[in-house]
Amino acid sequence: MIVRKLQDIRKSDRNVKSNGWESARLLLKDDAMGFSFHVTTMFAGEELHMHYQNHLEAVLVLKGTGTIEDLGTGLTHQLAPGVMYALNANDKHIVRPETDILTACVFNPPVTGREVHDENGAYPAEADMVRTAELAN
Amino acid sequence: MIVRKLQDIRKSDRNVKSNGWESARLLLKDDAMGFSFHVTTMFAGEELHMHYQNHLEAVLVLKGTGTIEDLGTGLTHQLAPGVMYALNANDKHIVRPETDILTACVFNPPVTGREVHDENGAYPAEADMVRTAELAN
Repeated sequence: MIVRKLQDIRKSDRNVKSNGWESARLLLKDDAMGFSFHVTTMFAGEELHMHYQNHLEAVLVLKGTGTIEDLGTGLTHQLAPGVMYALNANDKHIVRPETDILTACVFNPPVTGREVHDENGAYPAEADMVRTAELAN
Repeated sequence: MIVRKLQDIRKSDRNVKSNGWESARLLLKDDAMGFSFHVTTMFAGEELHMHYQNHLEAVLVLKGTGTIEDLGTGLTHQLAPGVMYALNANDKHIVRPETDILTACVFNPPVTGREVHDENGAYPAEADMVRTAELAN
């Protein structure tokens, strides 16, 4: 059994802050659960363009409000506590937080945790590098 | 993209209530995400003996307090908001909620959602039937 506290992860290298978001990785690939599990905050006023080409992701909003635009359908959905969205088709999307949005996120396959530290301009087949690169543009 | 609201799931057959717990299944096996994602409440004063023989599960406490006893190590851990436990070795465990405990849970492989409805006494290779059967004893 693995037992971890978010407050400890916040102080460790499992906590990653980037442009517009911060993510505490409760579980990563090396925990061998078959998924990774994150507590991620998306910051008020940002416009986060995301496209996970190699991962499925589910996101449960815990706190805060905003919108998510599905670029595939053109539809915009309201985000509020208790709303869950699942990117089951590598959906291109834009999240626009009105307030800071706190979420619990699950990735399959699991994120390794090394993606955002690799900022050499390459696009590895991992979620967060795509996110980081797109936000940097 | 799948978008669902917890309040809607609460009113649907994706919400299951059993002895000592209630679970709203945001994502199930048929959503083809490779995991299932639940918001589960364990009720104050209960003693939940659980053993998922065929599933790995991660649980993030969102609200409430209690303890989890790891029957493999004999250790008891405090549960409070921000604590995550992962059953990475099919760990036998007992959760003792002091208050109602609200959690976000991830199962790999995903739960089908039909397990708790099959109450014929058999033990299918699924998580919730094991949980239900043990609680019934």
